[in-house]
Amino acid sequence: MAAKYLREDVLAMKAYTPGEQVNNCTKLNTNECAWGPSASVLKAITEATPDHLRLYPSPMCDRLRAAAAEVFHVNADQILVGNGSDDCLTVIMRSFVLPGSRVACPWPTYSLYDTLATIQGVEITHVDWLSDVDPTLEGAAAIGGVPGWHMPVDALAKSGARVVFVATPNNPSATLVPLAALEALADRLDGILVVDEAYIDYACGGDGMAASAIPKLTAHPNVLVLRTFSKSYSMAGETSSNRNPLRAHFCEAGRIVKDSYNVNALTQIAGEAALRDRDHFRWLVNSTLEQRQVLEAFFGRINWVWPKSDANFMLVDTGSVALASAIYEGLKASGILVRYWGSRPDLASKLRVTVGSEDSNNRFMDLVQRLLNELPEARTTAS
Amino acid sequence: MAAKYLREDVLAMKAYTPGEQVNNCTKLNTNECAWGPSASVLKAITEATPDHLRLYPSPMCDRLRAAAAEVFHVNADQILVGNGSDDCLTVIMRSFVLPGSRVACPWPTYSLYDTLATIQGVEITHVDWLSDVDPTLEGAAAIGGVPGWHMPVDALAKSGARVVFVATPNNPSATLVPLAALEALADRLDGILVVDEAYIDYACGGDGMAASAIPKLTAHPNVLVLRTFSKSYSMAGETSSNRNPLRAHFCEAGRIVKDSYNVNALTQIAGEAALRDRDHFRWLVNSTLEQRQVLEAFFGRINWVWPKSDANFMLVDTGSVALASAIYEGLKASGILVRYWGSRPDLASKLRVTVGSEDSNNRFMDLVQRLLNELPEARTTAS
Repeated sequence: MAAKYLREDVLAMKAYTPGEQVNNCTKLNTNECAWGPSASVLKAITEATPDHLRLYPSPMCDRLRAAAAEVFHVNADQILVGNGSDDCLTVIMRSFVLPGSRVACPWPTYSLYDTLATIQGVEITHVDWLSDVDPTLEGAAAIGGVPGWHMPVDALAKSGARVVFVATPNNPSATLVPLAALEALADRLDGILVVDEAYIDYACGGDGMAASAIPKLTAHPNVLVLRTFSKSYSMAGETSSNRNPLRAHFCEAGRIVKDSYNVNALTQIAGEAALRDRDHFRWLVNSTLEQRQVLEAFFGRINWVWPKSDANFMLVDTGSVALASAIYEGLKASGILVRYWGSRPDLASKLRVTVGSEDSNNRFMDLVQRLLNELPEARTTAS
Repeated sequence: MAAKYLREDVLAMKAYTPGEQVNNCTKLNTNECAWGPSASVLKAITEATPDHLRLYPSPMCDRLRAAAAEVFHVNADQILVGNGSDDCLTVIMRSFVLPGSRVACPWPTYSLYDTLATIQGVEITHVDWLSDVDPTLEGAAAIGGVPGWHMPVDALAKSGARVVFVATPNNPSATLVPLAALEALADRLDGILVVDEAYIDYACGGDGMAASAIPKLTAHPNVLVLRTFSKSYSMAGETSSNRNPLRAHFCEAGRIVKDSYNVNALTQIAGEAALRDRDHFRWLVNSTLEQRQVLEAFFGRINWVWPKSDANFMLVDTGSVALASAIYEGLKASGILVRYWGSRPDLASKLRVTVGSEDSNNRFMDLVQRLLNELPEARTTAS
């Protein structure tokens, strides 16, 4: 039996559970973009030649890196392109983490960090987000941040981690981590700080670069930044061909540990076209922000609460586990999917809702309103 | 510096060096297919909708697995699809290999196995191919195989490896490993046997299934087989979206350790279309075999020798290091690339030549003939 030779720690672990993918549903559960990618992406793909398929692609994604370097005002040789953020995270694990070392992240966050740590055979330390701003920070009062979701800078710095993962905006909370807190952590940490900016294009009213660590890379050589095409460029289907503006030294190592041809030819073509269409990118982000406002107004009317969202989703607290569960099931029965973690006490009264198109959001809001009128769980909670 | 935190073993290792990718060259160096993929692949890609890009792809590649299951007469749940063989090899390493365990392969072979072992932090044992058939095999005389490239069954079985990698046909020798030898190794090995069949569609005069371990999977539950779209389906550009007919138990583990959405939507579409066009597949293989015969006749005329090729390339021995090096450089100066490992004593008198199109092969043969007439190294060798 092949099973006999499987690693015991792998057999014992749980796989990262991606959100449900169900056909013909209204998908407000996996934070995809509500509208399609740039027309120039589809045009570029259509113009692919047989040779694009036949020949191996550019191992380092030269044209895509050149386009990203222009957009992000970094050098192309600071950028490593992967087959999705997950691939980039694997490259980082392989480059910096040895058995016996430790990694860390604030908690709760994207659970794939846990999965990858286990696969790499290392321990991951979870440090709870803080209610208030970390008192060890200089000028703490001015730093800002979201109550309940302040980064535990001091505890992360002292965790002994060789790599710390911080998603900003965080998933599932949608909350932004202030740049000053990230810089303080980078300064104090004896290790690598990975800043996962998958959702940052939706931050600061659409001025994501204002919250981004990319302009700080020169000042903080132990920082690596992840970006993705999955969200604000509407290309989750091309598993994201992430680009990571990274330190040049890491790129050399990354070149060693990454698969030789990990990013497909069509993905490289699509990514370059997406990056170069700044108008469509801006339109996607603005449309998302408009629809986020519509959802915020609705959640306010029904008295659900949520931490301030700087992403294309919101983590809404329904007020009770019974209600969250009933709403999730009621939505699903009518073909609307949102993300629900019923078995996790910290999240069981909450739903993570992706900002959808106007149509999807209207369908979602109508149904939630109807469920609130009909469900016994809603009456219990209201009382 | 990020460099300060890099793993020392990673810094010390050499990256896997992919073949040169140079524009506007005649590429006989990386074993790509000489002709384009099925027209239905390009059609399927052109018909991709914005939603194919916008939404996450099928995590387990359901349609592609169904198509592969039909073609290979296995159950879909025995198949795990990866983003290229390299990705699949990573999944295998992650699933079966722990620090302290050991892997092995016959040598020389595809050097990426070494790279992946180092990344995983494990030792890899190289066991030299044998001149004659392994005498420990029952009915050894009838087993066949290629002189100088017989599999060291006994030594591999006794190597203590948890995973053994065998490429058949082997790279760079193009030599087939007889199925009886593979089965004997599977029987004796206390571990996993990975049979890498990237080139097998070119074996046995185009009847690759006759040499394939796929029909033996049920009898040998510790065997995993790798296949690829890079070669006989002419899709190296879609980094191969490998499919691996594997034991179901491994698939469960593979599901855990693989990235959630590792195979892009367009790649899945392309792979399914390629698998379903059996006529084009057959045409690609037959065209390759015809051109291989042309090259064989030429190499025979110029007195170069090579082990019998069952792949879309040949490892030809020019007779001297000086000649191989001069031919390689002379070809390159005229825009024709072949693969040359000048720093490896076992390979330095040899060139690995991919079977190209009629045009490419003619250009290659003309130039080699001209170089042989002109080069002083050729005269030295002939004397």
